[in-house]
Amino acid sequence: MGSAMSTDTASAQPASTPSADDTSPGDPAAVPRGPVTSASYSITVRLTADGDPASIGRIATAVGQAGGAVTAIDVVESRSDGLTVDVTCSAADAAHSEEMVAALRAVPGVTVRKVSDRTFLLHLGGKLEIASRVPLKTRDDLSMAYTPGVARVCLALAEHPEDVRRLTIKGNTVAVVTDGSAVLGLGDLGPGAALPVMEGKAALFKRFADIDAWPICLDTQDVDEIVRAVELIAPGFGGINLEDIAAPRCFEIEARLRAKLDIPVFHDDQHGTAIVALAALRNALRVVDKRLPDVRIVVAGAGAAGSAIVHLLLEAGAGQVLVWDREGILSPDDDRLSPSKRALAEQTNPACTRGELPDALVGADVFIGVSAANVLPVEALAAMAERAVVFPMANPTPEVDPVRARQHAAVVASGRSDLPNQINNVLAFPGVFRGLLDARATEISDGMLLAAAEALAAVVRDDQLNANYIIPSVFDPAVTPAVAAAVAEQARAEPGATAPVTERMSSSG
Amino acid sequence: MGSAMSTDTASAQPASTPSADDTSPGDPAAVPRGPVTSASYSITVRLTADGDPASIGRIATAVGQAGGAVTAIDVVESRSDGLTVDVTCSAADAAHSEEMVAALRAVPGVTVRKVSDRTFLLHLGGKLEIASRVPLKTRDDLSMAYTPGVARVCLALAEHPEDVRRLTIKGNTVAVVTDGSAVLGLGDLGPGAALPVMEGKAALFKRFADIDAWPICLDTQDVDEIVRAVELIAPGFGGINLEDIAAPRCFEIEARLRAKLDIPVFHDDQHGTAIVALAALRNALRVVDKRLPDVRIVVAGAGAAGSAIVHLLLEAGAGQVLVWDREGILSPDDDRLSPSKRALAEQTNPACTRGELPDALVGADVFIGVSAANVLPVEALAAMAERAVVFPMANPTPEVDPVRARQHAAVVASGRSDLPNQINNVLAFPGVFRGLLDARATEISDGMLLAAAEALAAVVRDDQLNANYIIPSVFDPAVTPAVAAAVAEQARAEPGATAPVTERMSSSG
Repeated sequence: MGSAMSTDTASAQPASTPSADDTSPGDPAAVPRGPVTSASYSITVRLTADGDPASIGRIATAVGQAGGAVTAIDVVESRSDGLTVDVTCSAADAAHSEEMVAALRAVPGVTVRKVSDRTFLLHLGGKLEIASRVPLKTRDDLSMAYTPGVARVCLALAEHPEDVRRLTIKGNTVAVVTDGSAVLGLGDLGPGAALPVMEGKAALFKRFADIDAWPICLDTQDVDEIVRAVELIAPGFGGINLEDIAAPRCFEIEARLRAKLDIPVFHDDQHGTAIVALAALRNALRVVDKRLPDVRIVVAGAGAAGSAIVHLLLEAGAGQVLVWDREGILSPDDDRLSPSKRALAEQTNPACTRGELPDALVGADVFIGVSAANVLPVEALAAMAERAVVFPMANPTPEVDPVRARQHAAVVASGRSDLPNQINNVLAFPGVFRGLLDARATEISDGMLLAAAEALAAVVRDDQLNANYIIPSVFDPAVTPAVAAAVAEQARAEPGATAPVTERMSSSG
Repeated sequence: MGSAMSTDTASAQPASTPSADDTSPGDPAAVPRGPVTSASYSITVRLTADGDPASIGRIATAVGQAGGAVTAIDVVESRSDGLTVDVTCSAADAAHSEEMVAALRAVPGVTVRKVSDRTFLLHLGGKLEIASRVPLKTRDDLSMAYTPGVARVCLALAEHPEDVRRLTIKGNTVAVVTDGSAVLGLGDLGPGAALPVMEGKAALFKRFADIDAWPICLDTQDVDEIVRAVELIAPGFGGINLEDIAAPRCFEIEARLRAKLDIPVFHDDQHGTAIVALAALRNALRVVDKRLPDVRIVVAGAGAAGSAIVHLLLEAGAGQVLVWDREGILSPDDDRLSPSKRALAEQTNPACTRGELPDALVGADVFIGVSAANVLPVEALAAMAERAVVFPMANPTPEVDPVRARQHAAVVASGRSDLPNQINNVLAFPGVFRGLLDARATEISDGMLLAAAEALAAVVRDDQLNANYIIPSVFDPAVTPAVAAAVAEQARAEPGATAPVTERMSSSG
């Protein structure tokens, strides 16, 4: 085998059962069974095969029997005692591809060396690059963009520091800061392994809000060091987005940075989630014709997202909120609680109600989950009030299956992209920071978070609103401008929350 | 006056003396005198004029008498008691524009509010932006660039951290780090005012070497804090370029970071200057047919650049180097010397020679200046050896006028862009970092600096080499690839200086 072999799978091969009339060649047992594969999900597996000529054939057979299709075999290295090949296969999804890899590992004479997929290939070289906004072709260009011309700009900024947002990138940049201690739902992976998420976040900032965001992955988990590092890099940024930093350290870090910096600091895992959840709830309550001050709300999960959701709900006027976590319903008289959980308990449960999640849900109007997979038995939903609103938002697996929840609740939303009403932070953070930067905000307040949530909810017009459409799509172009405008307006309305606008010249338009 | 008035000055108006036959209307005294103006250098001045209708006329007259030309007047605001106007004028250069502004300040009834120019206008909004390297149009795109697909990449990196340079931006990024304590030749302006220089540097990294560089302006001048901050941000970068950090702190900062980090750390003000100076010297010595070990070299200036130049010259095999600074010829027995200057003195002047700069130059073959303006009297050059090489590199004004120096020296180079042989760091830092990143270097050594200098010198072929061409133009496309290849080759040749290459898959090309 000296060259690449490809199989055209532009059209997916449906699974089929051979009939008695089937005269196709080859072993009927080799006919693909199982999920429909698609060219949109493919993996590449590097294998070494021993010198047995039958080994390569066994590779294709194993893939087929696992329900996949081989689309290419590329020989990487050929030796007298064997071959190294890259086998590209179509799968239905990530789980299916793992089955295929397992099948390959089981093939005698074959060793799996490495597995790559389209997602990995997309990540080669990273997902961000920079670009110059000014020409750099001639000496004249360089003399303005760099020396000697740039010197005049530096001197002007030294004399008028208030012009820095106008004359530098500070007017449009956000640092995406992590310590890698709570990467997505994966836990403490560290700063290097967190970088792909931060790159993705920065790319989303640019895509949705034309913000120039840059990843900053810090090699420490010490609160003092994190606070000091962000303080030290702040001169070049117009805002700080904290990301994937574990609770409870994230609360202290954000609070201390907000006190020190003259640019806004926003932990998206907290407030982005809260904004979108509140917007969705507002619209869900419109659907079921209930009012926020009147409803009983249960929040599952007292970490970063849960704490922020509770706080924002109370700011928005929610009357009754109970919080549940692994300790049970959070009660102020429970000695096991950490300081942040105790604070939540004091704000929400002065009556010291105790119990488990199903107990909390009896007669409740709203469930919002930011906790863990499958902690909520479906039956417990039956005890909720009529026209219940249920948001099981744990990722990737919600607290309860949203499809089954829909049998008990009037309105259901979750983090799943394959169901209606996806709660996705992309609906908030781009518009929030766009508004903050446009207003030259020096801080971010609960008022701005509430304004963002209101604006997001209002993108769904009355004539569009229904139980399956309470939150816009992330691709709805109305979202970011609406959220940005609302946040900027609120920022400008709050005394001292923005830096003064400095003079502009006619020739700059 | 209710609208903009423009004067077409596409062709420059030469200064002229009115003749007896001149029948042009208007006051002959108003005919422009002075430098030829050009549309390529224009300023915009915002003025308030009182209600006197003659005031606007006096503005145009003042500009004309100062030798400039008004190209546009835009009314910004009109009130009953006066006007605010933006007046755009062509000038010959920055100095001329300052004369024009001074003339405007002197006009009765007129107040100058603000002055802007093309360089400032270029800087509006900053000079950098980011871009996504991956598509973000569909949900499928997002599911690979962000959640859930990105999670697999994070897990893979947590398991195989050595893949981080391949799967993230770390493989192509450089942090441009300053504390703003030595911005160009302007001194301590602080991190905010330094930002335009750092943006420009990053833009040059991209333009010349396709490197994604990002400015990091630190709000501290404390050595420990700077070292710790850079250490903490290092996970996301493949290299650190220190910039505009004052001596002697820059020496300790670079040394400590080199010891701690597994990515290269390079202070361009030191080593970039040294590389280009050495390359130029190599070629100059070829022109005058002398050898580095044989020549007597005098270096003026013992700061960042001077120290690095001396060090690299000695590494390259220079035999005799004397250093002069404001203390005189640096001698080990001089109690006034700082530790870094004393070290230089010990390396170069064990004989404890004393004197001033002209004394040092008697019989010297080479002068390299990285000190201050006009410290070297032209006459002192006459005492140098025959076929002298003189590099007065102080910016913006050299130690001696290079044109006059040419009357005494065989080869002259300086930092001036309007004369032959410009010593410009842009000839080094892009190629150096390109090579370091390509080789996955974990450090940078003197060997790599020497390799860079050799490669840069070699870009000038024997048939091209002459006294007016000893260093390539910054726009010569051969420069960066040649320097990069030499640095990468040297890095790979040094044990332990690079991170191992990790496996690549066929489908990634």
